[in-house]
Amino acid sequence: MEVMTENSTLYSAVTMNLESTHSQVVPITLFVALLCVCLVIGHLLEEYPWLNESITAILIGFVVGTIILCTSKWKSSRLLRFSEELFFIYLLPPIIFNAGFQVKKKQFFHNFFPIMLFGVTGVLISTSIVAAGCWWLFPKLGFNGLTISEYLSIGTIFSSTDTVCTLQVLSQDETPLLYSLVFGEGVVNDATSVVLFNAVQKINADTLNSHTALRIFLDFLYLFTTSTLLGVSAGLVTAYILRGLYVGRHSSVREIALMVLVAYLSYMLAELFELSGILTVFFAGVLMSHYSWHNVTESSRITTRYAFATLSFIAETFIFLYVGMDALDYEKWKMSMLSIWTKMGIYSTVMMLILVGRVAFVFPLSIISNYLHRSGGDSSKISRKHQMVIWWAGLMRGAVSIALAFKQFTHSGVTLDPTNATMITTTIVIVLFSTIVFGFLTKPLVDHLLPSASNSNTTGGDPGSPKEDMTLPLLSVEESASENLSRAKDNLSMLMDRPVYTIHSYWRRFDTAYMRPIFGGPCSDENQSSC
Amino acid sequence: MEVMTENSTLYSAVTMNLESTHSQVVPITLFVALLCVCLVIGHLLEEYPWLNESITAILIGFVVGTIILCTSKWKSSRLLRFSEELFFIYLLPPIIFNAGFQVKKKQFFHNFFPIMLFGVTGVLISTSIVAAGCWWLFPKLGFNGLTISEYLSIGTIFSSTDTVCTLQVLSQDETPLLYSLVFGEGVVNDATSVVLFNAVQKINADTLNSHTALRIFLDFLYLFTTSTLLGVSAGLVTAYILRGLYVGRHSSVREIALMVLVAYLSYMLAELFELSGILTVFFAGVLMSHYSWHNVTESSRITTRYAFATLSFIAETFIFLYVGMDALDYEKWKMSMLSIWTKMGIYSTVMMLILVGRVAFVFPLSIISNYLHRSGGDSSKISRKHQMVIWWAGLMRGAVSIALAFKQFTHSGVTLDPTNATMITTTIVIVLFSTIVFGFLTKPLVDHLLPSASNSNTTGGDPGSPKEDMTLPLLSVEESASENLSRAKDNLSMLMDRPVYTIHSYWRRFDTAYMRPIFGGPCSDENQSSC
Repeated sequence: MEVMTENSTLYSAVTMNLESTHSQVVPITLFVALLCVCLVIGHLLEEYPWLNESITAILIGFVVGTIILCTSKWKSSRLLRFSEELFFIYLLPPIIFNAGFQVKKKQFFHNFFPIMLFGVTGVLISTSIVAAGCWWLFPKLGFNGLTISEYLSIGTIFSSTDTVCTLQVLSQDETPLLYSLVFGEGVVNDATSVVLFNAVQKINADTLNSHTALRIFLDFLYLFTTSTLLGVSAGLVTAYILRGLYVGRHSSVREIALMVLVAYLSYMLAELFELSGILTVFFAGVLMSHYSWHNVTESSRITTRYAFATLSFIAETFIFLYVGMDALDYEKWKMSMLSIWTKMGIYSTVMMLILVGRVAFVFPLSIISNYLHRSGGDSSKISRKHQMVIWWAGLMRGAVSIALAFKQFTHSGVTLDPTNATMITTTIVIVLFSTIVFGFLTKPLVDHLLPSASNSNTTGGDPGSPKEDMTLPLLSVEESASENLSRAKDNLSMLMDRPVYTIHSYWRRFDTAYMRPIFGGPCSDENQSSC
Repeated sequence: MEVMTENSTLYSAVTMNLESTHSQVVPITLFVALLCVCLVIGHLLEEYPWLNESITAILIGFVVGTIILCTSKWKSSRLLRFSEELFFIYLLPPIIFNAGFQVKKKQFFHNFFPIMLFGVTGVLISTSIVAAGCWWLFPKLGFNGLTISEYLSIGTIFSSTDTVCTLQVLSQDETPLLYSLVFGEGVVNDATSVVLFNAVQKINADTLNSHTALRIFLDFLYLFTTSTLLGVSAGLVTAYILRGLYVGRHSSVREIALMVLVAYLSYMLAELFELSGILTVFFAGVLMSHYSWHNVTESSRITTRYAFATLSFIAETFIFLYVGMDALDYEKWKMSMLSIWTKMGIYSTVMMLILVGRVAFVFPLSIISNYLHRSGGDSSKISRKHQMVIWWAGLMRGAVSIALAFKQFTHSGVTLDPTNATMITTTIVIVLFSTIVFGFLTKPLVDHLLPSASNSNTTGGDPGSPKEDMTLPLLSVEESASENLSRAKDNLSMLMDRPVYTIHSYWRRFDTAYMRPIFGGPCSDENQSSC
């Protein structure tokens, strides 16, 4: 952990002689103390639905930043210097792993196709629009100096969403489909943005032509596939070991340790082979909770669920606290050397492009998803109001945007270049504005669009739906050949009729018949509701 | 984390082009993979009682060390360079915190006096004997060059025990007093050794006189008291916040996060004020599980219990794996430049001093403890056979010895001085010999001394014992003054008669009447058995 005391004046009064030996200890101690304060205040403010954990942490960071700024005589507002390593190795993986681990598997796999459509295709569309828009509009505002590759990075930076705020006001029981889509898009989107960011980093072109675009796309595809496969393998290996050896017979501790270590190992392996560790841990998390989780003792289940959530929670609070403090970093604001109007122009442009970028994929992709689900009944269709909520949910920008921006535009949190300083301050403004302003507006908007009483969309994943009960020849080994043939014909027409639905159904049956006996999990779908 | 690839030749075949960018990633990845292997093999060998986790990890470290040694052409046997920071900041605190957190509070407080007698006074006696013995005998063996302060350090290094092995073969139900004493001594002893080691580090004398000895003792007392107070405060503050705000009403995650963060904060604060972080987290752990644990939701209880145990388990396995690898470090063996007979002489001397050092305090202190408990019945007396087991249990040396030896005699795991190299190899030999040989012998010895059928010592903490039911004037506010007076007299004579017992009883009643209503915990003693 690369940390530095930047504000020695603050501590000199209290810790005079400790300064030299404990330069790292003081800021870390203060930061941990602040995290505790955030926890307690966050708990006390729980009653107010318009205030969430993120906003609280940012505001506390603001207050502390101000205090530090004053005591350090306008030198710095930060306790810790930003460290990419700290963020990408220690903070982000637990957040993403936990997202994969806690995702409602049934809903996630049920809505796998629309989630991937929004999370992957959506990011590609949004990145293109934001990048192109910035490339076209920034010079007109008098802001020059960015390369093509930097414009593409900006595109990915502003395409990663933070859906925590919307999820807090949505009800998983009243609108399961919507909740699942917003949650699923949120996590897939984070991972996709990071992968795409890495793919963009690899190119080094001054102009963008079809060849470069193709290379980025192929790089992205390669990273996405291999990282996913690695994560899936890690999840399956863990499940197989836990089931085969029945580790929990002797000790729950060993089970938990194995899950944690394999998750970390998969991340390290991905980094070693220059893949996307984030995507790998996400799928390791999904697979572990889908299979391994059923092979362990009850204590291990509870422990893993809460321990991973706690890690993720601490990491997120840490990031928002940091952002709140960094927002007051005087140096960066002074450095960007643009007039206030140009700056305002840049902020509004980016904000506008984010809004447009989301419009450009949420509504068209919803139509495609609805078309493919056309025979699935109303329950699997995305209504116009739900599309509005999905659009809105993805407007907030959060921790990942900040981290990517720091990675692109600073060197260990410090930048001396005016252009880079402008992009950092722009990211901070967008994150603060979208989190606080859009965050405050979410509750009224959702209440307006989805009055909970009149909401009839409660059958998203109803397991009793008769159409799901078709049997597939692949898996019904006890039946006669002729029966299988007629069924196969039925299924073929079904596949034409409702492609997504049928694929999902195939997967379900394959999972039940082959995967679960090997890797673990409840045997019948009825028990699955607890997954 | 300061890690280094020392054996580049090993990886060059596999990771040619990754070498430069990933110098840290490869060894960490391999180490995590090895930890997974240890877990699985440890589970498979669980059937054999003479093999414990520590021995397994050491043996795997041995095997891997050999492989690395061969592939690196006798250059090195290690994956990671030893880092004091890694050990003292990341590995040891979770182990000690967990020991405090999992300790059976009822037994621990019940046997508080003998535990402290063994854990604190015992370490002081053992350190004096080992240090004096080495100072007297090493020069006779032809091994010179150590300073007085180094002899004292050696005393503390070989006074920290590792009781894991004995605890595995003792039954908590059959011999609660014995189990509690061995476990309690083990954890208090670890913390005391570290505190005493730090106290010794501060002096810089070439000769030891009564003044230096007094200074060490006062330093030790200061460190011990302040660190304990800080830990106790941290535990009480957490308990008070969790109880007062009832954090679990909204989220278990926040409760767990608060406990983890405050524990870490107490450790950092102790380090900041140059106290002993180890002792602080130990008492923070004890207090948190005594009070906070009762204020949180059921999920938080299970999660904290298992998550802390898992962390501790991983840290211990990591250390033993490292020791196994380091044992084959060719350089150190070559460096010590002493004849094989001198070396054998040093090893036997230290081993003998450890045996004598324990004899010198276990038996006399047991007699003192028995005298103070003289009216407590057989249940609270330490029988001759139990004294033998306590003596034996403390013969194993483990992770803490290794860590302190590295801290004293190396610079980041490397030493170029023959004397220092000799002390490091001596420590490794003692740890390996005591863990493996004494470890193997523990089961037969305990079976011989305590045949479980004939064991009658099962009433260690019987809550129904009539003598415990005396009421104390301090706490019985509803009674008349005269009753109180006569009771006070009774209690005074009781205090003379059975001092330890009465003090414990006072504490219990004070805890129930004042502490628990404020900080949490079950209200009556009957419920306490679940603690």
